[in-house]
Amino acid sequence: MDETLLENLLHWLRIPSISTGGGDPAEIERAAQFVVDRVREAGGEGDLVRIGAGNPIAVCELRAQREDAPTVLLYGHYDVQSPEPLGDWDSPPFEPEIRDGRLYARGASDDKGNVIPVLHAACELARAGELPVHVRVVIEGEEEVGGASFSAWTKADTRGADCAIVFDSAMEDEQTPAICLGLRGIVAALVEVRTQPRELHSGLYGGSVLNAAHVLHKAVGRLLPDDLGRVRDELREGVADPSAAERASWAALRPGEAVLEEVGATPLHPGAGAEYRVRNGAEPSAELNWFEAGEARTIVPATARAYVTVRLAPGQRSERIREVVEGLLREQLPQGAQMTIGWHLGDPALFPPEEPAIRIAAAAIERATGMAPVFVRSGGSIPAVADLAAKGIPVIVSGFALAQDRIHAPNESYRLASLELGARAGRELLLALADLPRG
Amino acid sequence: MDETLLENLLHWLRIPSISTGGGDPAEIERAAQFVVDRVREAGGEGDLVRIGAGNPIAVCELRAQREDAPTVLLYGHYDVQSPEPLGDWDSPPFEPEIRDGRLYARGASDDKGNVIPVLHAACELARAGELPVHVRVVIEGEEEVGGASFSAWTKADTRGADCAIVFDSAMEDEQTPAICLGLRGIVAALVEVRTQPRELHSGLYGGSVLNAAHVLHKAVGRLLPDDLGRVRDELREGVADPSAAERASWAALRPGEAVLEEVGATPLHPGAGAEYRVRNGAEPSAELNWFEAGEARTIVPATARAYVTVRLAPGQRSERIREVVEGLLREQLPQGAQMTIGWHLGDPALFPPEEPAIRIAAAAIERATGMAPVFVRSGGSIPAVADLAAKGIPVIVSGFALAQDRIHAPNESYRLASLELGARAGRELLLALADLPRG
Repeated sequence: MDETLLENLLHWLRIPSISTGGGDPAEIERAAQFVVDRVREAGGEGDLVRIGAGNPIAVCELRAQREDAPTVLLYGHYDVQSPEPLGDWDSPPFEPEIRDGRLYARGASDDKGNVIPVLHAACELARAGELPVHVRVVIEGEEEVGGASFSAWTKADTRGADCAIVFDSAMEDEQTPAICLGLRGIVAALVEVRTQPRELHSGLYGGSVLNAAHVLHKAVGRLLPDDLGRVRDELREGVADPSAAERASWAALRPGEAVLEEVGATPLHPGAGAEYRVRNGAEPSAELNWFEAGEARTIVPATARAYVTVRLAPGQRSERIREVVEGLLREQLPQGAQMTIGWHLGDPALFPPEEPAIRIAAAAIERATGMAPVFVRSGGSIPAVADLAAKGIPVIVSGFALAQDRIHAPNESYRLASLELGARAGRELLLALADLPRG
Repeated sequence: MDETLLENLLHWLRIPSISTGGGDPAEIERAAQFVVDRVREAGGEGDLVRIGAGNPIAVCELRAQREDAPTVLLYGHYDVQSPEPLGDWDSPPFEPEIRDGRLYARGASDDKGNVIPVLHAACELARAGELPVHVRVVIEGEEEVGGASFSAWTKADTRGADCAIVFDSAMEDEQTPAICLGLRGIVAALVEVRTQPRELHSGLYGGSVLNAAHVLHKAVGRLLPDDLGRVRDELREGVADPSAAERASWAALRPGEAVLEEVGATPLHPGAGAEYRVRNGAEPSAELNWFEAGEARTIVPATARAYVTVRLAPGQRSERIREVVEGLLREQLPQGAQMTIGWHLGDPALFPPEEPAIRIAAAAIERATGMAPVFVRSGGSIPAVADLAAKGIPVIVSGFALAQDRIHAPNESYRLASLELGARAGRELLLALADLPRG
């Protein structure tokens, strides 16, 4: 283990850079400044960039020896989720502790521990005069709150990069590294329905007046999937079928039944586990995440609120599906009912395995870890990756997290072995990307 | 105004007999004992009856001069809802104050002020040796919390009565008294669905695992009415059509549109107001009163809860409709989802206008107030009335409350004019019921 890497990580983890509420803006800034300081110490340059009232982004650069080298953008986030409930931690969340080969702290896996090995490798290579690519380090502080700063920065950035590295993802299992080729997009709707100025007595008025819970129940019902979990055709617009080769590669992965069992999930139906890789990687899905209306007594609710999310498969466009979702929600709104909707959108992203950056990355990770990475897709959404993909920048989404790391939960941790794998993979990756064709 | 009546009411209103939480059991008992004391002072007898851990029921009797007189049961409730939010009261809720011909206090209208004139009339008649009917005074303390004590007492009571008076109801308008012939029954279901041991990430698992909110959404959807507010046929089983005469009498009442407008309601559809009397008095209805699941973020909820109430029209049986409701809720429950249901049932009640007690009451109220009472039905449920009706006791449901009394809300009040009308009506009623045929 590289002692400097571990010391740097411990230092970074001690900064409580909480973005999800209850955090201190000064600590947010310290965690961002830490990145700038590391890069400057290694001979690079950089500074904090602020977009509006958002948390600062550390935007830095380590230049390659060769001026015409390709440019690699290293993305990560220094912000963490709040550590509550504090009583459930075996050691304080911002006093990192090593026990049995694991480093316990909030952010240990998500994302400080996952991203710092690549940052460290870039700094060490630069210091040694061996950095073969220009590395633009862009580490943001609003990932956990879906903030808009990074998206705005990417859109405004005219320099771009020849590829990006995002280490915010997981291994397939404790031995097998993975590269995530696809991420789903998202259309999230926060819907509110209002029907009356106030609640009414359900015996005296129910059945004659508009019940906000009924109106919203019906509206969100238009978005929910059938009993097999399949969403209606309008919500499937644009879905790109995965190639036969990619489907075949999923068959070699851990069975979907095992993925569900690992988290104690109840399958949607008997066949849902077997279809997991296709469903989660290449199909849209829709969930009612939240519904809240009325009280458990005899009233007619006057307001009702829900949060519904539609995940988009690669090929779909979030702005188009937003229109479809809004149409379905408003389609049969009765006279006298008001509906307001707040939106959050993210496009899907998909990188072909033949993409030069992906090919180079796969070979580099295999050299570093001794195992060829498997190609996976994730059903989740990483808006930053979609933002980069939208600019035509291929993104290497990888990392050494594991399901056991308990990210976002008490006793979050990261294996020292994962840190080591990350350091080796980060170094090989930066060296190998020198061969990347320049865009 | 009878000064003793007013003083007695003020005394009773000063006792904070709150049953809905935050109340003091000693005050509950004082309010019940107040009834016993009034009856004893008038030469009657009585005591507090306790059923299990329930609030005491004041069970008393004033005997008529003539031993073979009919027996009248006077029902009411001394418990009140908690007065929160206290800051919204213009005067303290348990320090009654008279302003502009209205008496302001919690319980002023519901039910202390509404019931005490009849109690007072019975005591005064007994004191004067002029009481022509035996009066069983049964005033309970769990009406506001749907407690089971009165129901258990009624079922166990072998003496019964020839008719009952329940003054817990309202006038048709400020001038017109009303007798409520029908009350709807209720089947209330508190439903909980559980699908997973814990919440899951909606991107990683949504679409492959059971979402508790989806399961409950679908289940309660089976109970909800169509866009015209009509419930499915299975829930209409047993509905008794009102007679042509009764329908015709509703046409003479205030238009349903005005009833809805009075509370600022948004009609279910353009024709809902015109149909109000039939819908509310003679049709079943169903409401989703409460739905709660998940959080407004990207999770798959593991539990979801709802409160659904079906109001039953006269003719329907609550135990039978409970079976239908349970069948609908459980009908398509997917494998792996658990559903638990808590029930609260109440039968509907209906008294024909030709019923001797009703005919006598209508004439007596007209003599007392100068206005013939109109016959109405209420869409609400008074379980005590259903309990009495189930024993074959005809119930005169009336009273002098008004929609403006703000029952259950801050600044509850009762008109002094209503108190006066109640006293006159109570006296005439007791005198006239001497003619009641004995059961």
